[in-house]
Amino acid sequence: MGARLESVEALVFDMFGTVVDWRESVAAEVATHLSEYLPTVDPREFADLWRAEYQPSMEQVRTGSRPFTRLNVLHRENLETVLGRLGTDPKSIPARTLDEVNLSWHRLDPWPDAVSGLTRLKEQFIIAPLSNANVRLALDVAKRAHLPWDAILGAEVAGAYKPEAAAYLRTVEILGLEPPQVAMVAAHNSDLAAAQQVGLRTVFVPRLTEHGPAQTIDLSPDGDWDVVAEDFEDLADQVA
Amino acid sequence: MGARLESVEALVFDMFGTVVDWRESVAAEVATHLSEYLPTVDPREFADLWRAEYQPSMEQVRTGSRPFTRLNVLHRENLETVLGRLGTDPKSIPARTLDEVNLSWHRLDPWPDAVSGLTRLKEQFIIAPLSNANVRLALDVAKRAHLPWDAILGAEVAGAYKPEAAAYLRTVEILGLEPPQVAMVAAHNSDLAAAQQVGLRTVFVPRLTEHGPAQTIDLSPDGDWDVVAEDFEDLADQVA
Repeated sequence: MGARLESVEALVFDMFGTVVDWRESVAAEVATHLSEYLPTVDPREFADLWRAEYQPSMEQVRTGSRPFTRLNVLHRENLETVLGRLGTDPKSIPARTLDEVNLSWHRLDPWPDAVSGLTRLKEQFIIAPLSNANVRLALDVAKRAHLPWDAILGAEVAGAYKPEAAAYLRTVEILGLEPPQVAMVAAHNSDLAAAQQVGLRTVFVPRLTEHGPAQTIDLSPDGDWDVVAEDFEDLADQVA
Repeated sequence: MGARLESVEALVFDMFGTVVDWRESVAAEVATHLSEYLPTVDPREFADLWRAEYQPSMEQVRTGSRPFTRLNVLHRENLETVLGRLGTDPKSIPARTLDEVNLSWHRLDPWPDAVSGLTRLKEQFIIAPLSNANVRLALDVAKRAHLPWDAILGAEVAGAYKPEAAAYLRTVEILGLEPPQVAMVAAHNSDLAAAQQVGLRTVFVPRLTEHGPAQTIDLSPDGDWDVVAEDFEDLADQVA
């Protein structure tokens, strides 16, 4: 299986869901900071609703109806949108509290295999996030969780949100490489399809509980990915 | 002295000369790869001549007469310029050899205190290079030397070369901070002057042999810098 990553010099990683468990991490912070204002709302359901606004908010940037806007700004706007949907006026909650809740995306916990797997993979490859997270968000997550990235790349540095081709291709160019020398690692088939479309190699690492125990999507590979690994430790085993 | 960095959350570092000893590192590679073609040229003198083209080549970008061009491209052009000045036709040397010599800038050795000092400073601050190096160059230097950066920032990510104000201010913005929350660490008074001009804090760390034993510039602070430290270990002591 290692042969399928021959000539690959860099592994770039989706972050939300692939490296970190956003749902449980955000839910825990929502429970801490918002339960007083939303006593009847399940924190995991709130995390799901918040995450559901993620793609639509980036779509405004992708279509050009809005200039490139950092994800932490979109997250903050989406937080108010979700509160409104739940019938809570965002202005009824202190702005400072909402800012703190927004920072929950900067304090996401990694999956158990992430740090040890990345540490092994770093010996053999350049490793970097290619996430839609802005630099400071990804940096804060990495610093807190000790993710050993060689650089923080992704949408903000590329100036484009995945799955736009430019997000992948500008990252490849910044790395001084050609697309086949870079492998995208993701728990999401759609991310890999977009990366493969522009010539990158692909590694699928399913995260079966990203969306909770009743998850129905991305349970298995649905494309011809170069490598399928159970987790980052398994990936390090396969490429060793 | 630590009080002068109060409210500072990130330390951003000049790289060439401040973190790494470019002169001895480049000279060693020039001796290895070019002595056959330039038997009478002193490798350190060659390194000095090459470095002397650094500012003029970036000036074309700063003045807008050339679009933003990565430093490794400028280095490669400057290499040919220097060879021509020395009376050697660059075409008389295999392009592969010149490419290899150009990569000497990706294999610079850190000053002895750099890794240990940065490792200590990382516990208290976000640390990142704010260098004119392109991302891949800075990444390669860091990976080889084990520099524990939290992110690779600088001219390429900011889209502007120091000492342009945008190089500092866009980096501050990417970090999600205000200028007084970021301190520029450099061995060059001119870099600190430009950073201070746009509101950053400043840390001077003299590197007395950056230009060899006969160095005449940047031997001492010539501005009102917030901190002056002997090296990165001393800086870590002062801010502890």
